[in-house]
Amino acid sequence: MALKEESCSKCFDGRQLVYSHDSETLKCNMRFAVYLPPAAESRKVPVLYYLSGLTCTEQNVITKAGAQRICAKHNIALVCPDTSPRGVNLEGEDDTWQFGTGAGYYLNATQEPWSKHYHMFDYVTKELPALVEKELPVTATKSIFGHSMGGHGALICALKCPGQYASVTAFAPICNPSVTPVASKALKGYLGDDKAAMEAYDATCLVGSYNGPMMDILIDQGTNDGFYKDKDLEPEAFVRAAAANPNISVVLRKHEGYDHGYYFISSFMEDHVDIHAAALNEDGSGAAN
Amino acid sequence: MALKEESCSKCFDGRQLVYSHDSETLKCNMRFAVYLPPAAESRKVPVLYYLSGLTCTEQNVITKAGAQRICAKHNIALVCPDTSPRGVNLEGEDDTWQFGTGAGYYLNATQEPWSKHYHMFDYVTKELPALVEKELPVTATKSIFGHSMGGHGALICALKCPGQYASVTAFAPICNPSVTPVASKALKGYLGDDKAAMEAYDATCLVGSYNGPMMDILIDQGTNDGFYKDKDLEPEAFVRAAAANPNISVVLRKHEGYDHGYYFISSFMEDHVDIHAAALNEDGSGAAN
Repeated sequence: MALKEESCSKCFDGRQLVYSHDSETLKCNMRFAVYLPPAAESRKVPVLYYLSGLTCTEQNVITKAGAQRICAKHNIALVCPDTSPRGVNLEGEDDTWQFGTGAGYYLNATQEPWSKHYHMFDYVTKELPALVEKELPVTATKSIFGHSMGGHGALICALKCPGQYASVTAFAPICNPSVTPVASKALKGYLGDDKAAMEAYDATCLVGSYNGPMMDILIDQGTNDGFYKDKDLEPEAFVRAAAANPNISVVLRKHEGYDHGYYFISSFMEDHVDIHAAALNEDGSGAAN
Repeated sequence: MALKEESCSKCFDGRQLVYSHDSETLKCNMRFAVYLPPAAESRKVPVLYYLSGLTCTEQNVITKAGAQRICAKHNIALVCPDTSPRGVNLEGEDDTWQFGTGAGYYLNATQEPWSKHYHMFDYVTKELPALVEKELPVTATKSIFGHSMGGHGALICALKCPGQYASVTAFAPICNPSVTPVASKALKGYLGDDKAAMEAYDATCLVGSYNGPMMDILIDQGTNDGFYKDKDLEPEAFVRAAAANPNISVVLRKHEGYDHGYYFISSFMEDHVDIHAAALNEDGSGAAN
């Protein structure tokens, strides 16, 4: 087996696992977490991917979000990758929490030295699903969501891979990273000072021209979120850009008083997982297996 | 106000707070966490105390256990103290995770130098409830539960303070610390090599002579728990000792495959909080406020 089991704990009658593996795409050893619900003991189940935000590892969401209970209820698996390549020893990778380690932005970097390892887009959309589907009791039916940098990651994965995900939602996503302050610096570092290259990984720039299957997107945003107040997220820009596209419907919910952290995420986790479970279990390829 | 707010995040329509204060009992600055449910914005609510296990701070349970959702559902507050005095600079306090910092065992130490600060029993049963009831929108109606060392803490608080708690439950509690390997060393350190002194803080020794109001105790225990397998917990000893007391009824549930950690706790948290909420909301002193 290509996966090494790092930990396993029974949780809500299923199993919370962490695996490591050598990633060909990222050219380093990576960890990811998988929650396998009770039904996965006897049949294949569909998979929900969760992409985490800046500074996170695969641990944050499995520790803090309370998602396992809801995935157990619906019998869907939850796969949570790490947020960047690890241990690749690039100069400057640990200089700031906004770039490099823990800040891979789910894109394929083109600039040296990052282009050697930082191909998180290919990792989360291709290598990891193929690996998970080969090695674990899951079907090919998948949905995706995430938080902050990972909320944006979920949006671009869905927008750039039409038909690959049954549903997509996001918690407080960075929505327009080619122009917002914190994210644009990172995108420039990975992709160079090239507007078109940056816009190719910007959900607000991509959403207008998406022409895949109809996509209903839920975005939850707290009004007391410092990144939102600093205009680093800009969900309204995404909503405006999406309005022109008949294949996209966005619901942006603003929640008074909630901040950017996991107390916010956990409060609305059930709404998100319920949406994904409905989409995943409706999809024939998942339910049939 | 005697409390300093260290953090506040909206969570399930209520507020997850952390406060610090100067403890007279412990003679040091202490932190504790409080979850205030939505109803606490407009009226006083009853309080559930959660005592954590070895190495924990007030953070572990509020981060990992998923209790806020359930406390919000029932409109009860959750108060989570730290596990020992902090920053008191006693020689040897950080030598092992089994004694000293993070390992206060919810008792009143009699041995020097611990007796200067380590009075966690008085802190959690007297000073903290008085403070919380004075400063926060809570009633005097309270219940208590906990995990491991804190599960035992909950048991001895309820057994040694008859009538003070509307209900008590425990996750994988240390049950017989005057004789089990890890805990007996700690008790000896705090109380001296004195059988009677140690038995006065041992739930299994106390339960036979409890003569307060009828007490129904739920204990959840995972069968894949390393401390259980090493005979550091011994819930069966507690059940045997309790059997002789008509005022005590114990339900010990053994859950196959679960370990000692928060994935176990979170899986059964709802059962525990539901029990406490029923007891707290039934009690006239709470519901009337």
